[in-house]
Amino acid sequence: MSKKLTSRDEDYSKWYNELVVKADLAENSAVRGCMVIKPYGYAIWEKMQAELDRMFKETGHQNAYFPLFVPKSLFEAEEKNAEGFAKECAVVTHYRLQNDPDKEGKLRVDPEAKLEEELVVRPTSEAIIWNTYKGWIQSYRDLPLLINQWANVVRWEMRTRLFLRTAEFLWQEGHTAHETKEEAIAETQQMNQVYATFVENFMAIPVIQGVKTESERFAGAEDTYCIEALMQDGKALQAGTSHFLGQNFAKAFDVKFANKEGKQDYVWATSWGVSTRLMGALIMTHSDDNGLVLPPKLAPYQVVVVPIHKTDEQLQAITNLSKTLMDSLRSRGISVKYDDRTTQRPGAKFAQYELQGVPLRIAIGPKDLENGTLELARRDTFEKINISVDGVENKIEELLTEIQDSLFKKALDFRDNHITKVENFEDFKKVLEAKTGFISAHWDGTAETENKIKELTKATIRCIPLDSIEEEGVCVYSGKPSTKRVLFAKAY
Amino acid sequence: MSKKLTSRDEDYSKWYNELVVKADLAENSAVRGCMVIKPYGYAIWEKMQAELDRMFKETGHQNAYFPLFVPKSLFEAEEKNAEGFAKECAVVTHYRLQNDPDKEGKLRVDPEAKLEEELVVRPTSEAIIWNTYKGWIQSYRDLPLLINQWANVVRWEMRTRLFLRTAEFLWQEGHTAHETKEEAIAETQQMNQVYATFVENFMAIPVIQGVKTESERFAGAEDTYCIEALMQDGKALQAGTSHFLGQNFAKAFDVKFANKEGKQDYVWATSWGVSTRLMGALIMTHSDDNGLVLPPKLAPYQVVVVPIHKTDEQLQAITNLSKTLMDSLRSRGISVKYDDRTTQRPGAKFAQYELQGVPLRIAIGPKDLENGTLELARRDTFEKINISVDGVENKIEELLTEIQDSLFKKALDFRDNHITKVENFEDFKKVLEAKTGFISAHWDGTAETENKIKELTKATIRCIPLDSIEEEGVCVYSGKPSTKRVLFAKAY
Repeated sequence: MSKKLTSRDEDYSKWYNELVVKADLAENSAVRGCMVIKPYGYAIWEKMQAELDRMFKETGHQNAYFPLFVPKSLFEAEEKNAEGFAKECAVVTHYRLQNDPDKEGKLRVDPEAKLEEELVVRPTSEAIIWNTYKGWIQSYRDLPLLINQWANVVRWEMRTRLFLRTAEFLWQEGHTAHETKEEAIAETQQMNQVYATFVENFMAIPVIQGVKTESERFAGAEDTYCIEALMQDGKALQAGTSHFLGQNFAKAFDVKFANKEGKQDYVWATSWGVSTRLMGALIMTHSDDNGLVLPPKLAPYQVVVVPIHKTDEQLQAITNLSKTLMDSLRSRGISVKYDDRTTQRPGAKFAQYELQGVPLRIAIGPKDLENGTLELARRDTFEKINISVDGVENKIEELLTEIQDSLFKKALDFRDNHITKVENFEDFKKVLEAKTGFISAHWDGTAETENKIKELTKATIRCIPLDSIEEEGVCVYSGKPSTKRVLFAKAY
Repeated sequence: MSKKLTSRDEDYSKWYNELVVKADLAENSAVRGCMVIKPYGYAIWEKMQAELDRMFKETGHQNAYFPLFVPKSLFEAEEKNAEGFAKECAVVTHYRLQNDPDKEGKLRVDPEAKLEEELVVRPTSEAIIWNTYKGWIQSYRDLPLLINQWANVVRWEMRTRLFLRTAEFLWQEGHTAHETKEEAIAETQQMNQVYATFVENFMAIPVIQGVKTESERFAGAEDTYCIEALMQDGKALQAGTSHFLGQNFAKAFDVKFANKEGKQDYVWATSWGVSTRLMGALIMTHSDDNGLVLPPKLAPYQVVVVPIHKTDEQLQAITNLSKTLMDSLRSRGISVKYDDRTTQRPGAKFAQYELQGVPLRIAIGPKDLENGTLELARRDTFEKINISVDGVENKIEELLTEIQDSLFKKALDFRDNHITKVENFEDFKKVLEAKTGFISAHWDGTAETENKIKELTKATIRCIPLDSIEEEGVCVYSGKPSTKRVLFAKAY
């Protein structure tokens, strides 16, 4: 809680890293690329989990749990998937340590305890799950199979950043099996929509729904749907993906079913996931130079009450008043914290809650006691009002809704102002560097052009938006004909 | 859902294994010793998690998340702990796979991608957590630190059984830091009590609280508190443990704090955990030869409604009636499933829900429609009543409470009838083999005697019960003086 944060203008990346640590969200661990999610950060993740879990169950999914490890022979069964993840796999090769005969008190890997087959720590679970589904699916009566897993996964990334890209992260992964291609595609789209709804309504982050180009697809997918968000520095962030896997995994793991006509057919598959990366999106979308700004629907506590007092009698009176108020707020489903620590001065507490993004702060002092008032301060706008305690619950409820809406509106305005239509490559480069954000441009549909643009500008095609309209145009790079605009951006 | 279960009398162990699979709770996976927790089993685990999580939060704990991996150098820092777990560690040695040049389409570990330091997949998290706490604790103001983690852990056990002993399992592990020894011991005891309350009130399993002998203690603990349950085959099962760790980890990781007098002192620690092993205890305590029996508080659905009809009109009428009834039950917080699948006959459905332990089954047929009645069947006693639909909600609510209480009572009677006081070693052996259960006997307090008894009988000291009274006696094996009885049993 020492000195001020680096400002976003000064160094956006440094601002982010400092904020995550100072707001007590997460920190780096002793394990390269792995983070510790601290209690305050984890409390936000729990709120996200609870809401997503509710939405998954409402759409008919059940949770289950599959092994952390994938035997190498299963891992390599779906070739494209294996190829996509092989370069970043943590591999277990031994199952025992022993005393190091050369170093007193130290351990070493027991060379006698080498596994016959290496185990990959799951980077994603399609392989182990489809190998399991083989035993669960015989007939159309066993379909659809709609399963979700909350789990940790490991991808050995070389450059890591707290929440945004870590070697281990927490996520959910849905894995579904269907009778028909149409049903599987509908599921893929439904789950992408669930993600969009959650991210917009709870995280207050506007997203664009689209599909990925072939080169940006999930390894092993026929089609990858996604939601793309825009951060305050003008870089895009992929917030969730939902994959139509065709029959690729069914074929790799030989998962067939007897259809209604009694014929054998391969099962159609989807998978979809969001991860603790969403925490990074949440932080970068709303926060400011004073620290975290949280949408009320995800704040571990929505209101904090800080007593300001000189005497013990004053504290007692403020505590009594606060208790009544807090009971009343809690009965309306509003979460409140009372901070009567005597080891910290009110100023330090104000700074802490500002840094931690508590949506509303209440301060009650001796004057307030006399007047029957309190001070109510909004984190997002810094507005303060002095208001009568009587009936303040309604005002608080209103304000929480207003903050939630206003954060979304602000992010939406920023995002919409940062989608720029561009017709030629000079403008493309200019907009990308100066204005930043999404660039809506025509593309000739080839991976060649896509790669060339990436090489020259570091911008990638974030998605082909679902609502992209058919129109005649020419590719912003090659000049070849195109019928649709796609969205380019530099991305996290 | 094929033929009947093996009976408990015939082969208790086989009965358990079959039941777990047939009731759709879990199954073995392609990874040696690792299980797949199926949706129905996972739904029970989620209910257990939700309640435990609530209890942890009520006692002031917060959740956080620490890395899956422990660098070898941290793992070995607390010597006893390291020694205790070294022999069953999965070890990550490489971070990349590559195409196998000798085998087309296969992968192999990339020999160039060897980690400088091996990573142990956490068998428990004291090492990585205490290494983190070092940065979090400077002064008494930072204490107590009360943190819990929900996570997967890996212990490379040689002989595994679904839920009871698996290489990977799910658990929670609490890790707390305190100013004083007394406070840490009080926390250890409090959490053991929380476990006892949960297991008795929710799982309907009576437990004995006690402390472990030195040789049965957690590696690195000064004292291990535990709750011990008794299964239907007369074997004990350790259902949860809570450890007072003294200053062992603080010393190993150099975690000091400035106390109120400004002096530096090592922090006092506890850790405590329960795991998916509890699922094994739940299954073995209540189930019968017809399948699973679940206490209503943990049943994924407490009531199932099966329509019995010949015509579509009948089904429609039953569905209408059921909907009204289910709305009314749900408004009382009772979970209900309606099974109107036409791919299964009512008899098959009855068998399924019996096998899966749904506490109450409702069947409604055409006769019931005429009479305004329904059939209500209890899973635990198989009692059936035909009862008026009017006001049946009260009866259902009552029955659910009654089933919960009756399961506990039944298990308690069994347990109490299986604690046998024994005064000499001949009786000890006889009771252990014939009657089974807990043996309450005097012990001379030496590890030597404890080991000898284990060697001769396979019985271990499950615990020194907290309520064990001081009395003069002689050790059941050595004849040496003793002041307290301890509980012996064969155990899972």
